[in-house]
Amino acid sequence: MTAFDYDLFVIGGGSGGVRAARLAGSLGKRVAIAEEYRFGGTCVIRGCVPKKLFVYASQFPEHFEDAAGFGWQVGEASFDWKKLVAAKDREISRLEGLYRRGLENAGTEILESRAELVDAHTIRLVKTGQTVTAERILIATGGSANPHAALPGHELCITSNEAFDLPELPRSILIAGGGYIAVEFANIFHGLGVDTTLIYRGKEILSRFDSDMRQGLHKAMEEKGIRIILTDVIQEVQKAPAGGLIARTLEGQRLAVDAVMLALGRDPNTQGLGLEAAGVAVDEKGAIVVDDYSRTSVAHIHALGDVTDRVQLTPVAIHEAMCFIETEFRNNPTKPDHDLIATAVFSQPEIGTVGLSEEAACRKYPEIEVYRAEFRPMKATLSGRSEKMIMKLIVDAASRKVVGAHILGHDAGEMAQLLGITLKAGCTKDDFDRTMAVHPTAAEELVTMYQPSYRVRDGERI
Amino acid sequence: MTAFDYDLFVIGGGSGGVRAARLAGSLGKRVAIAEEYRFGGTCVIRGCVPKKLFVYASQFPEHFEDAAGFGWQVGEASFDWKKLVAAKDREISRLEGLYRRGLENAGTEILESRAELVDAHTIRLVKTGQTVTAERILIATGGSANPHAALPGHELCITSNEAFDLPELPRSILIAGGGYIAVEFANIFHGLGVDTTLIYRGKEILSRFDSDMRQGLHKAMEEKGIRIILTDVIQEVQKAPAGGLIARTLEGQRLAVDAVMLALGRDPNTQGLGLEAAGVAVDEKGAIVVDDYSRTSVAHIHALGDVTDRVQLTPVAIHEAMCFIETEFRNNPTKPDHDLIATAVFSQPEIGTVGLSEEAACRKYPEIEVYRAEFRPMKATLSGRSEKMIMKLIVDAASRKVVGAHILGHDAGEMAQLLGITLKAGCTKDDFDRTMAVHPTAAEELVTMYQPSYRVRDGERI
Repeated sequence: MTAFDYDLFVIGGGSGGVRAARLAGSLGKRVAIAEEYRFGGTCVIRGCVPKKLFVYASQFPEHFEDAAGFGWQVGEASFDWKKLVAAKDREISRLEGLYRRGLENAGTEILESRAELVDAHTIRLVKTGQTVTAERILIATGGSANPHAALPGHELCITSNEAFDLPELPRSILIAGGGYIAVEFANIFHGLGVDTTLIYRGKEILSRFDSDMRQGLHKAMEEKGIRIILTDVIQEVQKAPAGGLIARTLEGQRLAVDAVMLALGRDPNTQGLGLEAAGVAVDEKGAIVVDDYSRTSVAHIHALGDVTDRVQLTPVAIHEAMCFIETEFRNNPTKPDHDLIATAVFSQPEIGTVGLSEEAACRKYPEIEVYRAEFRPMKATLSGRSEKMIMKLIVDAASRKVVGAHILGHDAGEMAQLLGITLKAGCTKDDFDRTMAVHPTAAEELVTMYQPSYRVRDGERI
Repeated sequence: MTAFDYDLFVIGGGSGGVRAARLAGSLGKRVAIAEEYRFGGTCVIRGCVPKKLFVYASQFPEHFEDAAGFGWQVGEASFDWKKLVAAKDREISRLEGLYRRGLENAGTEILESRAELVDAHTIRLVKTGQTVTAERILIATGGSANPHAALPGHELCITSNEAFDLPELPRSILIAGGGYIAVEFANIFHGLGVDTTLIYRGKEILSRFDSDMRQGLHKAMEEKGIRIILTDVIQEVQKAPAGGLIARTLEGQRLAVDAVMLALGRDPNTQGLGLEAAGVAVDEKGAIVVDDYSRTSVAHIHALGDVTDRVQLTPVAIHEAMCFIETEFRNNPTKPDHDLIATAVFSQPEIGTVGLSEEAACRKYPEIEVYRAEFRPMKATLSGRSEKMIMKLIVDAASRKVVGAHILGHDAGEMAQLLGITLKAGCTKDDFDRTMAVHPTAAEELVTMYQPSYRVRDGERI
């Protein structure tokens, strides 16, 4: 019936592309998916998954230290970076295999090649030079770390890509950036014994997060021994005569370190994709412009995930993929829902958050109630570790709805996931109050804060 | 105006009694609270708090083992039981001090004496022989471990009371019981290196919990090396000639161990309290009978917490205390709400649960949907630990409400706390489905189980 080689051609084998290809394949569509590097995308290959594995690795020294307060005496510990990298690589290969198997089982054709658009229905496979045609095309090529090419010496620096596979663990590192990638890696490297400095141009790390989370994490990181330099940026990186690097900052600091990591944002992977030839529009950042249904400026070409620069998160790309399938292949137009997305920063301590920060809630609602608890986690009472957990609920005083929930501390990510359900369902503070505590947990604080810590009316704390 | 010495006399300084005394005191009432042992009750002194501290202590060997998979080499570890007990004692004393300070700050009179009722308004302080009168009396004397006096050799056994303060850590222990105390202590002792056997009369541990949780925990405990004997009971305990104890079971087993711990239920502390003299009725188990407002058979005498044998949990006693204060001192009749109480078993792995088990839901609803995920936690992929996490949602097919949520695995207690809010608020499965995942977490499984694993209609799996 159709004159095209495929019903759907997916460019990019990350979380979003794979999900879309797999679902379309299982609906009996003729589907191909092209990936130039490895299946799994940023998340599996050099993002969420290896990051979290490294977080686990970097937490062990605290376990060893904490043990003493509980009656344990532990012999000296040593760390082998190469072993961790190898173990991580094995796990990533296993996951990549699962992704491939899922595609194969759905009858999807796997093409190990870069793919570029020739026109609005034609794709060229760079590896073989072959061209194929498709009725619908999905672009899910993701993003990549901004190399900051304007920085003199940027070629001496690493990004998160290289950080996962460094041949040796540096003795010291300078990380530029204040976003979650910079913060997570600062904690990972510090936990693994690296002398770690973070430098960020802003006044506080993690802009747009709730200020209690930002300040609380900043304080916790400094107490651990991570140096944080704010309102300053690297101006130049040079090789030091005796080895290592020298970074000079705008404010005149001279930092001698083994490695410099740039975590200064991520760019959509749209270079050389043939978008212009196909008539697909991009914005000034190079991100593909899409409508509410992930449709590009060409009606039968869709794009989703990081390449569209909406919300750069794995579950969002997967969700967009499922909506795309519903809309295009199941006759059920479904817009991705980007409202109230819970997220976690796997720093140490973790941040888990959903909904509005106190600052954003103040701008949106005439009056809010803030419920805030700061306490020492139970385990720290015996370990002697000086850490504080912070929990915060933001409530719209008029509707009593919980419009923001923020946690700094152990398991904050797990908690944010479940708090996400309550915010999505529109639960009120009374729903929280009605819930019996589970004792002894940390989360019980969230249901036992009966009186607001303070209120903010028209921007004034009362 | 009143001829009584006190507006309120509280017998028992546990969580419920202390909360009631403190709140009444802060309302300006003349309040006394009598405690014969230590303030804090079972929870603080020999329950939840020391238990959880011991759980933390017992988890370190797994941390040490897990480290290897992440590139760490750890020297040999040794454990000093006396250090743990001393650290635990310091923390309990600190918490007891906080309880006392809270009472003092509320203007409550603290009486360090056993108190017994002489008549419906008169209390005798056993220590001094003094009698005092009170307009209202609150009995919150809690419960204590059943000593199983009918068992020959029971005097050679310990209960959870002694387990917290053993002079030496036994090399081997036999724990009788299948409830959460037996299960938690089995995991604690095993984690601390004790050769541990659990014996329980029932067909599976943790009756009334969801069967997947029961079987999943059973399997995990056995895989760790905890021996579990079911459908059998200890018939006799004797001293062994060479030291240690011999336990003989109904099924003819002969178990030689250093210690036998009985965790066979708890009894309300009502013996010798003068309840009969005051006219306060008890049930056949000795628990004080109360109405929906915690009122005993004598209108101005109330009882709450474990002594009433409703739900033996710290947060429930505290909730009952707050309702009592609302009802009796703030003119706001408030019934304690015992519906949908989330709880945790701090076994290893943990269980977190709220609402109906699959079995109970089948009896209540004509048709249910069961969403079930069993997976290896991410950390285990590198540690190599053979553990599985189980997550389960039970949904009433007609209303789409989530009526039960059950988790076996790390942080299950924290998750149960927050799932408790969603069930209390009447959230539907659609509310869960609408929630974006937080990746990578374990809890994200709870919002990504889009299709039921199976349905049960009229008791038949379909």
